[in-house]
Formats: sequence, structure tokens, C-alpha cells
Amino acid sequence: MALICEHNQRRAHVEPSALHTLRATPQNVHWGYFDPAQAPSLTVKSGDLVVAEAITHHAGDAPALMMDDAVWKIFKEIPEEDRNPGVHIMTGPIFVEGAKPGDMLEVRYHRMTPRNNYGSNLAANWGYLYKEFGEKERVTIYELDPNSNNARALYAYDFPGKYLVPGTVTECPVCDRQEALKGVRVPVRPHLGTAGVAPDVHGRVSTIPPGLHGGNIDNWRIGAGATMYYPVQVDGALFSIGDPHVSQGDGEISGTAIESSLNVTMQIILRKDFFFPSPLLETEDAFIVHGFDPDLNVATRNAALDMLRLLNEHHGLSRNDSYSLMSVAADFGVTQVVDATQGAHVRIPRNIFPPKGF
Amino acid sequence: MALICEHNQRRAHVEPSALHTLRATPQNVHWGYFDPAQAPSLTVKSGDLVVAEAITHHAGDAPALMMDDAVWKIFKEIPEEDRNPGVHIMTGPIFVEGAKPGDMLEVRYHRMTPRNNYGSNLAANWGYLYKEFGEKERVTIYELDPNSNNARALYAYDFPGKYLVPGTVTECPVCDRQEALKGVRVPVRPHLGTAGVAPDVHGRVSTIPPGLHGGNIDNWRIGAGATMYYPVQVDGALFSIGDPHVSQGDGEISGTAIESSLNVTMQIILRKDFFFPSPLLETEDAFIVHGFDPDLNVATRNAALDMLRLLNEHHGLSRNDSYSLMSVAADFGVTQVVDATQGAHVRIPRNIFPPKGF
Repeated sequence: MALICEHNQRRAHVEPSALHTLRATPQNVHWGYFDPAQAPSLTVKSGDLVVAEAITHHAGDAPALMMDDAVWKIFKEIPEEDRNPGVHIMTGPIFVEGAKPGDMLEVRYHRMTPRNNYGSNLAANWGYLYKEFGEKERVTIYELDPNSNNARALYAYDFPGKYLVPGTVTECPVCDRQEALKGVRVPVRPHLGTAGVAPDVHGRVSTIPPGLHGGNIDNWRIGAGATMYYPVQVDGALFSIGDPHVSQGDGEISGTAIESSLNVTMQIILRKDFFFPSPLLETEDAFIVHGFDPDLNVATRNAALDMLRLLNEHHGLSRNDSYSLMSVAADFGVTQVVDATQGAHVRIPRNIFPPKGF
Repeated sequence: MALICEHNQRRAHVEPSALHTLRATPQNVHWGYFDPAQAPSLTVKSGDLVVAEAITHHAGDAPALMMDDAVWKIFKEIPEEDRNPGVHIMTGPIFVEGAKPGDMLEVRYHRMTPRNNYGSNLAANWGYLYKEFGEKERVTIYELDPNSNNARALYAYDFPGKYLVPGTVTECPVCDRQEALKGVRVPVRPHLGTAGVAPDVHGRVSTIPPGLHGGNIDNWRIGAGATMYYPVQVDGALFSIGDPHVSQGDGEISGTAIESSLNVTMQIILRKDFFFPSPLLETEDAFIVHGFDPDLNVATRNAALDMLRLLNEHHGLSRNDSYSLMSVAADFGVTQVVDATQGAHVRIPRNIFPPKGF
């Protein structure tokens, strides 16, 4: 089976035939779901470049800062009853010519730039420590400093009531604003919380649980410079992006990251020369596999088995060698501890492998 | 409550009153257990420097490479029936004058150097994928290259029978040796798999499950340059080190790391000015808390609650601020997925905090 790419070598250049722009409009987004029956917003050929707008569904936490006219239009024109069963605003889907189930969709994320310099973190009712905080929800608004690549908290407020409707717009009176995280600087690492191909299902499937199609993986390493490989489930792949973050810790324990709209430049490449059964991430320094399950123990085991497969089938190591190498060099992490589906991942450094032809 | 140390400032200099050497001899080691009734091997004052030898219990996997005369003496003179209920060879205990339950023992690990250039990884019967490998155990011997700070596999062999006795010596005939991991280079990160104070129990307690006293935490970040804070459980603290590793991935999934004897230089400082209930790690770039439980879900939750406590009580952030910050900047990881007790940890970057007096 083919290697994903040649170790210690640059990835093959793929010439784009076109550069597309995909704006976030009410017509070009779908809110809360993947649906293989949905008409595409854009059709591309393998290798094409796409600049797409990803809009945070938390823009309403600070409308004066995070909502421009185009964002308001989405929030106004997509009724609340059409935002389900999940919560994320997804831009797409993008139909990739020739993509068939069993192919891999390689997405090279070239650039992710904030749409504005503001983001929201919600300590949510689905957060990990919701009960420990007396079932209170709280919003902290962050401001990005593009010069230092840091974010700082601008203010915070207790959310009135319960945050149940995706895209709630809260007109927080100035008098309710509280100082937050004085002097603290959070490193900015823009990434997509949710992105993936349409699952092979009948009807809508929630954007919330991640799965083999990708979805809400919430790995902050899925940023500019990273490449994701998604197993195609349906004809045309029907790839969508959403849930943009400017910073998140592994675990995302309050239930959200710093949620902030991003403009994403990516190259979409159809791969028919290899297959991997779950979403695979390649960064500058590591290959990363993901496992998902309602039980973190099981999610971790799934990720372990996929790393074994990656090393064995794609890196040419024996199963025995793969197992030893994983124990001494692969790091297990927790990507997601909130929501019904837990996420685990395993990272193996790229630079441990011999150059090609060794 | 006092801060652990001042952010963005160098830690206070503590003048040592003595430099001690603690050799690994049959008299100075205890094999498989902590025991608060054990007589100390060494008594130190707060601030003293100690150079201690930590011996791997896996030296017998490649006796010609990993066992010198002093190591042989330990293996010969400590009978198998005295190696229990755990498996690790522990050097110590070190009695710290004035240490009382409720104090913290700060251990600054200054230097960890391999005793020899060889280490063993066992795919063990307690490993994470033991069943998936047909209940086979296998040893991979690694050689360290001190110039490149990498390790490479030297050879591997299937372990004959079942690896049940700590300190088994296997005279592997050359003909059984198989080539392993050709061309692969593993980054070396020497650290202690097991170290801690004596728990407040009656009799022996196994070295295998980590706990509030420290023990078998298996975090590869506990290396040179790192500082650990252990909550003292008994008078004199009775600190011991063992289970030296030269490399391990988070998770240590085959059941062992690259197990290799290390010489450890450390400074032992008694802290009566702050308390933290679980083993706390401070590295060059992060503060790290640990959680333990037979269920990884619970271990993860314990670690989350301790990070909340650290930020709230020791970094002066409100609980609300701490929770938001954890979600956007703290990374959850899996330290240990083998053995009965699972280990989780949470890392928060040091450089996000404001300088003192901000």
C-alpha cells in the first residue's frame, strides 16, 4: 500500500486548475448537520484551491464585535427550527469531481485568518465541569492581537438562562460586563473545530459527534500548514467546514474554544492511491490518528489500533516493530472530553522515520 | 496561598549544605514497594544535592549490555520472593530532616544521564494490545547514540514463556535475535517512570499504581530541568526513585518504555509555604497536574479538577477565569493506559501568566 507521502521529503506538487471563492451566505451554509442529499455549494476538480469563509455559531455572544452584515444575514435568514440536530454553521458542501466512496480526500490547509479580532468562549451546559459550577453558563469574550499572536480576555458575563438555541444573540449590556483574566495571554492557534465529508446516511446527521467522516474532531492541530485525509463516504465527497476556533486546549473542557470566524485557504486533492479508515492528520512534525467513542477508554483504544495500522500498513513497519515504537515514541492525547462522544488521538513524530530508500 | 514560584522569573536559589552520593546497592534499594517503616538509606537537609543511581528492573533483558557488576549484585542478592508487590527497583528511601505530612517535597531534577547506552522495551503481558498480539511477549533492545540524542533498535526477540518475575535474566542466544525498526530513530528523553514519597500505609504498597504520593506516574516530562512537587505523607518524606527510562510515549502502551538505568542529580527542597494534594510537575514551559483512576474517564476528571485548583488557588485566577482558560489553553493528555490504574494529565503553558506585579 502506498505511503501517505515520502518521509523527510516535500509533498508532491499538485497544480490547481482553479481558485474558487466560497462565501458564507444563507445559501452556502448548512446549520447543524451533514446531509448527503444536500445540493453542493461549489464543485471543484482535484487540486483546486478554495478560499472559504467559516462562520462561528457563537458570533451572537458579542454581536457588536463578531457580527458583520454577512453574518447577520445568515443568523436572520436561517430560522432556528432549521438549525439542527447539531449546532455548527457549516460552509459547503463542496462536490469534488470523481470522488467515490473508498477514496481519500486530502485537504491541505494553507491559511486560516481571523475574519475579525474577536472570539467567544462559553462555559456551556454541555461543559465538563458544568455541575461543579452550579449549572451556571458564562461567556468570556477574547480579543486577538495579530501582532503578538496572542489573545486576551476583554470581558465576561454570566449567560442569562440556558444556552439552548444555536446562534443565540445576546445583547449584553455594558453594565453586566466583568473584568476577566487580567494580564493573561493565550497563544493563538487558529483551526477548524469541525470539517469533514458527508456521512453515508439517510437524512441529516448532527455535526456534533465526530466520526470516520471527520466532523467535530476539535483537534487544534488542524490549522494552517496541516493536511487532513478524510475517507470519502459518498459520491463527490461533499466536504464542508465550520466551527472555526482561534484557540483551544486539548479537551475543550468548558464545551467551547475561543470561537471566532476564519477565512480558510485550502487545496482539495482526491487520492485514490491509498486508504485509511478514519480521519488522519499530518502536521509539520507528526502524523496523528483519531479515535471516537462515548467512553474515553474505548476512544483511546480505537486510536491505538489505528496508529498500529498506520505504522504497519503505511510506514512499512512490522506489527511487532510498530507496537514497540508506539510505546516509546507515540504520545496519546485527549482531544475532546465534552459531548456524548469522546475523542482521543495519538501522535507519532515524522522525523523518526528513515529517508526514502534507506 | 503562596504561588509555586514567581511566573516569568527564575526560581529562588537554595544553597545546598551538602552533596550526597547514593549508590544502588542491595542495601540501598527496595524492590517492588514503598514502605513507610523502612529505614532510610540516606538522610539529607532541605536544599541538599543528591546524586543517586536508578537501576532498571529490565536490565536482565540484555544482561551483557545492561548489567555491570553492581547491577548483578542487586539481582543476585535480592531474592525473587522479596521483589513485591510491584516490580520496580527503587533507590532510597531518602529521609528529609524536618519533613512532616502536609509539607511539599520539591525535587529539582538537574541531570539524568544513562548508566550505559542500552535499554529494553518489553511488549508485556500487561500491555495495552497484549490480546491483539496473540498474548505474545517480545523484547526490543535499543542502543542510545549520545551524540545525536537518538536511540535505534539493536535487535528483538520473542520472550520465552511469560514475563512474570521482576528482574528476569534472559540469556538470549544470538541466533534468536531479529532485526528491528531498521532506519528508525527514536528521540531520547531520559526521565524517571517512578519516584515518590512513602505513602502513609501499614506495610508494603506496590510501586505500580501511581497515587497522591507520586509513584509510577510515567510522565516522560519528569526529566532533567523539571521540578516535581510531592505531597509529603509521613515524617521524613522517605523519597525514593526508580524505573528509569530513556524514552517513552504518553500512554506507554506496550507496558514498558525504553527501560535503561540512569544516574540522577537532584536537589531536594522542603516546602512548608504551600500545599497541593497531588503530584505537580513544573517544566521549562508548563505546569502539569496528574489524575489517576482505574477508569480513564475518572482519571481525566481528577486531573481537570486539580488544574482548576492550581489556577484558582496558586495562580490567583477566579474559578470562572480558570475554567475558561483551561478550555482554551490547557492540553489534556494520557500518561498511562496500561496497568490497573490509568493516568491522565493536564498541561498549562507557563508563559500565559502575567509577570509578577502586573
